[in-house]
This record gives sequence, structure tokens and C-alpha cells, in this order.
Amino acid sequence: MQNLLWLVPVAGVLALCFALFLAMKVKKAAPGTERMKEISASIHEGARAFLTAEYKILVVFVIVLFAVICIAINWKMAVCFAAGALFSVLAGFFGMTVATQANVRTANAAKEGGMNKALSIAFSGGAVMGMSVVGLGLLGVGLIYIIFKGDTNILFGFSLGASSIALFARVGGGIYTKAADVGADLVGKVENNIPEDDPRNPAVIADNVGDNVGDVAGMGADLYESYVGSIVSAVTLGALLAKSDTAVVKELIPGAGVFFPLFLAALGIVASIISTFFVKGKDGSNPHTALKIAQWVSSALVVIAAYVLCTMCFEGIGAFIAIIAGLIVGLLIGTITEVYTSDSYKSVKKIAEQSQTGPATTIISGLSVGMLSTAIPILLIAIGIFLANHFAGLYGIALAAVGMLSTTGITVAVDAYGPIADNAGGIAEMAELDESVREITDKLDSVGNTTAAIGKGFAIGSAALTALALFSTYTEATGVSIQVTDATVVIGLLIGGMLPFLFSAFTMDSVGKAANKMIEEVRRQFKEIPGILEGKAKPDYKTCVAISTQAALKEMIVPGIIAVLAPLAVGFILGPEALGGLLAGSLVSGVLMAIFMSNAGGAWDNAKKYVESGNYGGKGSDTHHAAVVGDTVGDPFKDISGPSNNIIIKLMTEISTVFAALIASVGGLI
Amino acid sequence: MQNLLWLVPVAGVLALCFALFLAMKVKKAAPGTERMKEISASIHEGARAFLTAEYKILVVFVIVLFAVICIAINWKMAVCFAAGALFSVLAGFFGMTVATQANVRTANAAKEGGMNKALSIAFSGGAVMGMSVVGLGLLGVGLIYIIFKGDTNILFGFSLGASSIALFARVGGGIYTKAADVGADLVGKVENNIPEDDPRNPAVIADNVGDNVGDVAGMGADLYESYVGSIVSAVTLGALLAKSDTAVVKELIPGAGVFFPLFLAALGIVASIISTFFVKGKDGSNPHTALKIAQWVSSALVVIAAYVLCTMCFEGIGAFIAIIAGLIVGLLIGTITEVYTSDSYKSVKKIAEQSQTGPATTIISGLSVGMLSTAIPILLIAIGIFLANHFAGLYGIALAAVGMLSTTGITVAVDAYGPIADNAGGIAEMAELDESVREITDKLDSVGNTTAAIGKGFAIGSAALTALALFSTYTEATGVSIQVTDATVVIGLLIGGMLPFLFSAFTMDSVGKAANKMIEEVRRQFKEIPGILEGKAKPDYKTCVAISTQAALKEMIVPGIIAVLAPLAVGFILGPEALGGLLAGSLVSGVLMAIFMSNAGGAWDNAKKYVESGNYGGKGSDTHHAAVVGDTVGDPFKDISGPSNNIIIKLMTEISTVFAALIASVGGLI
Repeated sequence: MQNLLWLVPVAGVLALCFALFLAMKVKKAAPGTERMKEISASIHEGARAFLTAEYKILVVFVIVLFAVICIAINWKMAVCFAAGALFSVLAGFFGMTVATQANVRTANAAKEGGMNKALSIAFSGGAVMGMSVVGLGLLGVGLIYIIFKGDTNILFGFSLGASSIALFARVGGGIYTKAADVGADLVGKVENNIPEDDPRNPAVIADNVGDNVGDVAGMGADLYESYVGSIVSAVTLGALLAKSDTAVVKELIPGAGVFFPLFLAALGIVASIISTFFVKGKDGSNPHTALKIAQWVSSALVVIAAYVLCTMCFEGIGAFIAIIAGLIVGLLIGTITEVYTSDSYKSVKKIAEQSQTGPATTIISGLSVGMLSTAIPILLIAIGIFLANHFAGLYGIALAAVGMLSTTGITVAVDAYGPIADNAGGIAEMAELDESVREITDKLDSVGNTTAAIGKGFAIGSAALTALALFSTYTEATGVSIQVTDATVVIGLLIGGMLPFLFSAFTMDSVGKAANKMIEEVRRQFKEIPGILEGKAKPDYKTCVAISTQAALKEMIVPGIIAVLAPLAVGFILGPEALGGLLAGSLVSGVLMAIFMSNAGGAWDNAKKYVESGNYGGKGSDTHHAAVVGDTVGDPFKDISGPSNNIIIKLMTEISTVFAALIASVGGLI
Repeated sequence: MQNLLWLVPVAGVLALCFALFLAMKVKKAAPGTERMKEISASIHEGARAFLTAEYKILVVFVIVLFAVICIAINWKMAVCFAAGALFSVLAGFFGMTVATQANVRTANAAKEGGMNKALSIAFSGGAVMGMSVVGLGLLGVGLIYIIFKGDTNILFGFSLGASSIALFARVGGGIYTKAADVGADLVGKVENNIPEDDPRNPAVIADNVGDNVGDVAGMGADLYESYVGSIVSAVTLGALLAKSDTAVVKELIPGAGVFFPLFLAALGIVASIISTFFVKGKDGSNPHTALKIAQWVSSALVVIAAYVLCTMCFEGIGAFIAIIAGLIVGLLIGTITEVYTSDSYKSVKKIAEQSQTGPATTIISGLSVGMLSTAIPILLIAIGIFLANHFAGLYGIALAAVGMLSTTGITVAVDAYGPIADNAGGIAEMAELDESVREITDKLDSVGNTTAAIGKGFAIGSAALTALALFSTYTEATGVSIQVTDATVVIGLLIGGMLPFLFSAFTMDSVGKAANKMIEEVRRQFKEIPGILEGKAKPDYKTCVAISTQAALKEMIVPGIIAVLAPLAVGFILGPEALGGLLAGSLVSGVLMAIFMSNAGGAWDNAKKYVESGNYGGKGSDTHHAAVVGDTVGDPFKDISGPSNNIIIKLMTEISTVFAALIASVGGLI
């Protein structure tokens, strides 16, 4: 199989070619009227301006860490780190560029060709992001593995690069989009009573830019990091199979443990590409079905591929069972997420009902739903870990994560398609297109929200499993025994457990600060630019874009630095055991905070929509006001603080693994 | 020293005699007018009715668990368990009875004798609870140790009994008081515009009963449990000193490790008794100073006692340093708690400021303050663990907890004095006493709130250290190695981490449900009893008391049962390693959730008061409405969900230790 290893980067290239093909398809579509093109150009410009500014800061960060790694570890690790970061940036840039072209073309397709045509463009736009993510991810991992002749340790540099960018992109993009959103909503909709996406609103372009930098580029970087992390940890643990006599999984071919996740990921790319062709609804049919079919087709193909590969690589089907366990747990967590956050079920209805007695009960019931919603996903993850470990050892846990993430191509495509449809709606509104266009884009948007739930389940489940697999590689690398009865381990556990609370506090605060700046600016423009509300004067969109950009970038720095420095400080001061405790503690509380905050936020969002659709007094009622309070609290919960925790726990484990040998040799100053 | 062991239970008896003396002093004071006596009798009756109903349910729980322990372990353990539960019930009953006598006498003393006299009565009432808690706690531990001839394992039965009652008393009492509070406030104050503590409000008696069953009996049971738990874990770890060659602390006398915490606790009682005599303000002076002096005197006495004892028992002063570390960490956490929750500092002011933009920003900033406030206490606890462990090993960690809790007598006295003063104010209002009486009781009440912050710091810090010490005894008892890299340990960590989220969700929900029932009943009475609002007809207080009682008792059952069953289920199904993981996970997330929720709640409470004192528009402004929403969300946070976590983590560890041998022999079904 060694000879076939070149197929792995080739699969990455294949994905990139397919992405290019889709991008050209999007580009070829007609962009509509002059007004539409102009709006789209503003969004495109704003998004590009943000990414450029963000990447400028990231370059500094990457250079500093590059130098540190060069000195403390070696130049190879540093190069891999830079490559991981660069590839993430490329994926984000490419995906986002196409997304900002796809939005206007989706609007135009809805206008000219109807639902089916619009779905095709929007989904193609999303699929570019999906294919870029998996293509660049697997290309990078495959090339590094081949170039450095199987040095699995060096792969963590690549993975660390991916995580660093992911954290900044998620936090920065998230703050950007929320600040713009709150500013546009509060001053425009509430204070001045103009509709959503109205061109008179100075923050409207920033709001639409936010969808792209937060929900497309930010989300893409997040899943790119999960994808790379799961493959790297599986490859590393797979390399240990051959050395261990007690491994649960026995190789049929030498090196099978390493090749298996790589080939599975390659086949996952093929499966994702095939399944995109299933996204072809007939006009009048529900686009939801088309997207679901694509997700199921890709999962089914991966299952078949995993089975065949497994019988070729290993004695027994332990590895296959681990993968299936991962896939099923991911799907079930997605389903459970829907139960707690969709208005078809009782949790969301209860929050809406409780909103009748005012915002305090809205908040209490939402927090309670969020906390309650941690129970079943945690039990599912526990069952997944148990099965994977029972049938394939620690390697199996990493495989379960790979199983969940093998269909990342299609998962990201479905996720990124939502904001494109959302943007298309905004453009339709601003360009004053026919009401029917907005209906189509709204329909596409709402379908995107539902299918994204499964993506969230995969993100949470895979974060837990990947972090755990990475954690195993950390303990392998340091060779220390991490006993919970050791006082320094307990100290690490407590500090690690606290970090996600600290990050969540920071990110929530940041949104508030950034939003306040935006609110002031929008208010200022309404006051100082005469004729703006009558539609006679053009608002100054660019200043709003610049404010969101500056605020987001300023606020993302502190959490980013803490995530890097906290594990290093604990490792070098208290030693590798305490650092092991820190990683375990942050894993536990990070996963819990991620589920709690994401689900509470999702539930509040949909409770508000449930009231808006006419329940308990409908729009404008006191119940609605209370539900809006819940939604506002939920926004930073579900879009920034919650998901950031998924990234932080992996980033901290990766940085620890990269510095593991050094930390182990220093052994703690105290 | 063996011969002097009888001094330990004698110190307990001494505390009880002193409690009796104080109770007689309270009883001797004049109870005031007929109207005052009548009101006080209603509160007394209501409180007694609740405790009786609560204890009836607890009897069933105790009998079931008694039988299980009898069969699964042995009759001795079962008897100790029952004794631990019984002593807790006795302390609660006795303390609460005197508190409900002290309230009316405090009001009368304020009327007849002024501030100084009122302070003396209220504090004496609180000190009865304090002395009952430490007296019965140390009497029980001392007697069991002597009767069972030093079988330290059996002590966990006693400690488990204490924890079980504490959980039910804290959760049940908390739900009771919040339901009554919300019902009285919402329907009385907000909907019908009558003042606080107005006799026309049907829920007013239930509200005052709540102060006694929640803040006196519930809090007392909570600290009784911490006190017993810390001593038991120190004694158990102390017994291992003699057996270990590598122990950090070396005994000078055989058995010193065991005697040291017992004698220290005995001397702590003496210190507490002495310090009560310092609570004697001059009229016109600030009662705050008197209470602070008492707390400092008792701490100083304990430090001296610890030093002398330490030099008698051990080589070096490692044990002494551990105790000092515990005391200082406790004081510092208390101080930090004040920084995050008092309106003299910027966190609370920020919440008040953010309330200007509505309830959503109030909530976000409060949640963020709560999460942020976990950082420093966790670091302080980490430093405490490090120092205690460095100078005295795991034994030192238990000693640090004993150090914090050695002054429990005075801590509980100061804590319980607050609700007595609060009640006195209620009685003054209902009996229509002169405005000057209310002024004195309000002053006493507000002082109680401030001094209670230090008590909270001790409760949080000691819970973490005690749980950790108990955890060490669990691992000693099972003899298993709990490696964080073991997949079953990780499963345990995740499930354990999730449990505090689950409990918090349950308790928050319960408050909502109970409050809704109370709201309905108060509304019904205002509608159906003619002349009630004009003060011509008497409201039906008893039904409100009964509703709060029933609702509280119903809601406390499920969380109680889960706390007992979850560790047993994980232990017997997944084995002792997974259970060890569960305990560590719940320790970490329980401590974090306790700090987060308690401090967020406290901060919201004081932000509201800050606005009410005339800032940002003052009472009745939009800012105030927003701040009230924060306070309402914060109520279950700070009074139930937060503090319950302190108890749950210890209860789960104790039940695990009691069943440790059995679990280790079964070794997990899977």
C-alpha cells in the first residue's frame, strides 16, 4: 500500500479541481442587474477587506510562533505549522471569494430560473468552500507525510497551524458578524423601524459581509481544523499499532494503521464529490430532501469504503465498527440537537410559553434547556468512546472522529450554502427585486438552518473525539502517567476546566463592546447624514464595515494568546502531568460549555421565530419582546462562545503535543 | 494523646451547652406586642410544618439507603449513616426553632433597646444554629471514632448521612424560599403595588418562612456537611500517615495524624465560643465592625491553636502551613467574591450600566461576570492545593479544608444572623411598628449580606478541598489507579462533568414550576377573597405555606435520587476507574458551576440594588426593569443551583467511598 500513498494528495488535488470547476460554474452564471452587481461588489469588497486585515494580524502571530517553534523544536515542525496556517487561509479566501460571487447569482437565478436553479448556484458556492477545506486539508497532510517520510510527529505542526487560524477566524468572524447584526437590527429595525436588509441602513452591507466572514470563512476554518486534527491523530496513533503487541487492532499489512485513515479520507472526498450530484431538486420539490439525500449518500458511500478498506488492512472488523460508531454518534447528536433547538419539539415551545411571563423566565428556561441538553450528547459521546475503544483501542477513538469527519466536504457545502442563500435574500431586498425572489431565498435559507443542525452535531462530537485522540498522542509523546490522584494533575484539571469559562466570558464581552461601537456609528449616520432615512442620501457603508473589522480584530487577540500561552505556562511551570490535567479538564468543560451555549442559543433563536410565526401573541407582543431578549443573549452563545470552545480544546492539545518533548525534558520548574 | 480523645466529643457537648445558653437568652427576651407574637407564631408554624413535611420524606430516603447499606456493607456503616442524618436534622430543627423565636425578639429589641440590643438578639439566634452545627458535628464524629475504636472507614457513613440531608435541605429549602419570594413579589409588589412584607399579601408569611427554612436550616445543613466531611477526610488520610514511609508529614506521637484534625476542630469550637463575646457594638457604632472582629478573633485563635498542636504532633510545621494556606485561601476567595458581587467594584457597576440598553445586555454582562469570576478563585484553590500538598501531602489538602472550616461555628452564626434580621424587618412591617425599627433591622440585614460573602468563599473553597480529600480516600479505598488516558476514566470524566449541568437545569426548572404555582394561588386569593386588598379580610397564609412546601418537596426528589444513583450506576456498570473519573469530572465542573452561578447571581442582585439607590435612572426606570430581570434570573443561580453543586460533588464522593470496596470487588459489569 506504501506505493499507493501518492493517491492521498491526489485525492486532495481532485477535490481542488472539482472546487475550481464549481467556482467556474458559479462565475459563469449571470450576476443580474447593475444594482445587484454593485451591492454584491460592496459585500465582496467588505469581506475581502476584513480577511486581508485579519490575515495581516495572523501573519504576525504565525511569524512569532514560527520562530519559537524553529528555536524550541526544529525548522521542519515550523514549516509544517506555517503550511497548516497558509492552507487554512487559502481555503478561507477561496471559499469566501466564490461565496460572495454566488450570493448575487443565487438571487438572480431565483429571479430568472426559480427555486431549482437558485439551489444549484447556492449549493455550488457552498461546495467550493467544502471542497477547498477537504482538498487543502488532505493535500497538506498527505504531502507532509510523504515528504518527511512518515514522521507522524511533524504532522502536529500542520494541525497546530490549522487550529490557530481556526480560532482567530471563528472568534474574529463571529464578533464581526454579531456586531454588524446587532447594530443593523437595533438601530435600523427597532429604533428607526426600517425593514431587515434595507439599503438605507448603514450597517446593512457589514451585516451581509458578516454572513460571509463568520458563517462561511469562520465555519470553514473550524471544520478544516477538525478534519486535519482527526486525520493527524489517527495517523499518529495508527503508527503505534505496529509497535504495540497489545493493540486491539491487528494489521494485515505493515503500516496499515497509518494508511487506513489517509485512504479513508481520500475515499471520503470521492464520496463527497459524488454526492454533490444528488443535490438536484425538481422545481416545486423541497430542497431539504435534496440536501438530506446528498448527506445520506455520502455517509453510505463512506460506510462501504470503510468496510472494504478495513478488511484489506486489519484482522477483524474492529476498526470498521469504530468508524460506524463515530458516524452514528455524530448523526444522533445532530438529531438530539434538533430536538432541543427546533420549534417542532417541546423545549423550544416551553421557552416560548415561558416568555409570556417576561424576559426573566425566557432566560431561565433557555439556560435550563441548554444545560439539560448536555446530558444525552455526553452519554452518546461516552457510548461512542466506549465502543470505539472496546473494538479498536485508542486508535479506534481517533477513527471514530475520522468517520464523523470523512464527509466533511459535503457537511461544509451544506453549512456554507445557508449564508449564501441568506445573502441572496439580502441582495434581493436591497435591489428591490420581486417579492417572489425573496420567498425562494427565504425558503433556501430556512432549509439551510435545519440541515446545519447535523453539521453542528458532527462538529461537537468530532471535537470531543479528536481532542481525546490528540490527548492520547500528547501522553504518548511525553510518556508521563497522568494519575487523577496526583495533586498537580488536579491543579491542571481545575485550571483547564476554568479556561472555557474564561474564554466564554471574554468572547461574550467582546461582542458587547463591538456591537456598542457599531450602534453608535449607525446612530451617528442617521443623525448626521441628512436624507438618509428618506432614501435620498446614501449611507456610508464603508465606515460600518471598517468599524466591525477593527473591533473584531482587536477583540480576537487576547483569547487567542491565552489559548496558546496557558498550556505552555502550566506545562513549563508545573510540569507535563499538570499540563495533562489541564488538557483533560478543558476537554470536559469545553465540550460541555460548547453544547450548553450552542443549544441554549439555538433554542432561544427558534423560540423567538416560533412566537413570530403567530404563537402567544405573535410579533410585537410582550411575549415577543421577551423572546427577542432570549435571542439576543443567545446570539453570542451559539455563534461565538459555544463553538469557540470546540476549537480551543483542540488547539491547546496540539500546542501541548508540539512542545511535548521539550516540556517533558524540562519537567516543570516547581 | 489517645487518653485525651474524650475531649473531642466533650467539645461538641460544650458547643451544644453554649447553644442552649444562647437559646435561653433569646427566649427570655420580650417578644413584643400581641400582633407581633401572632405573626411570629405563624412564621414559626409554617417553618415547622415545612421541616416536618421535609423530614417525613427524608425518613423514607434514609430508611431505604439504611437498608441498602446494611445489606451491601454492614450494619455499623448503616447506623453511622442514620446518625449523620439524624444529627443534621436535629441541628436544623433546633437552629430554626430558635431563629423563629429570635426574629420577633430582634424586632422588639430594636423597638425598645435600639441597634445594640437588636444585634445581640439576632446574633445570639444565629449563633445557636452555628453552635448546633459544630456541636452535633464534632460530637458525632468523636463518638463514632471512640465507639468503633478508630475504624475511620465507618466515619464515611456519618458523613454520607450529613450530605444526604444537606442536599435535600439546600434544594428543598431553596426552592421553597424562591417560590414564596417570587410569588409575593410578582403578584404583590408588581401587580398589586403593595409594599414588601405587607400583611395583605397572602404569600408574605411563606416568604418569611422561606428565610428560615432556606437561609437558616438549609445553609446550616450545608455547612454541617462541609464541616463533617472535612474532618472525616482528614482523619482518614491522617490514619494512613503511620502506614506510609513516604508521607510528607512525620508523626511525633503515634496516631497524631488522626488526633490532630479532631483536636483542632475541638479548639476551633472553643475559639468560636470566645469570639462570640466580641459581638458587642456600642450604640451608634457599625455592627459590621463587631462581626468582622469576631471572625478575625476566631481565625487568629485557630492559627495559634494550630501552631501549638502542630509542634506537639508533627516534625516540622508542614501541617501548620497547610492549615494557614486553607485559611488564607478561604479569606481571599471571600474577598474576591466581594469584588465581583459588591457594588463598590466595577463588575457590578458594569452590569448596572449595561442595563441601560435593556435586559439582554444585563443578562450577557452578568453571565460574563460570573464566568470571568471563576478564574481567580480557581487559581487560589490551585495555589492552596499546591502549598498544602507540597508541605503536607494529600493529608495537607484535607487539613487545608479543616483549617477553613474550623471556625464554622462563627461563620454559620454570622450567616444565620442575616435572615433573622431580615425576618425581624418583615415582622416590624407587618405589625406596623415605627419606621425607626425597620431602619435598624434593615441596617442589620445589609451588614449580614456583606459579611456573608466571606462565608460563601469558605463554602466554595472548602467544598473543592474537601471533595478532593474525599476523592483521595475513595482512591485509597478502591486501590485503583485512575489514569486519564484510560478510556473508561475519560467516559467517567465526561459524565461526571455533565452532572452539575444536569442538576442546575433541574433546580432552575423547579424554581420556575414552584413559583408559578405560588403566583396562581396569590392571584386567586386577591380575586376570590373580597376586601383583602383594603386590609378588611385576612388572607389565607396557610395555603400559600402549604403550596410552597408541597412544590419544594416534590421538586427536590429527582435531583436527590440522581445524585445517589449516578455514581453507583457508573461504578457498578463501568467499574471503579470510571467512577473515579466521574468524581474528578464532577469536582471540576461542580466547583466551576458553583462559582459561576453564585457570583453571577450575587452580581445581578447588587446591580439591581445599585440602580435602586438612584443610579442610571433609579427605581421604576427602564434600566431598573432590566436590572430586575437580571436579579430574577440570578435568584435561583445564587441560592439554589450554584450552592447545590457544592453539596453534590461531596455527596457523590461519599457515597462512592462508602460503596468503594463493593464496587472494587465487582469491578464493573462491562
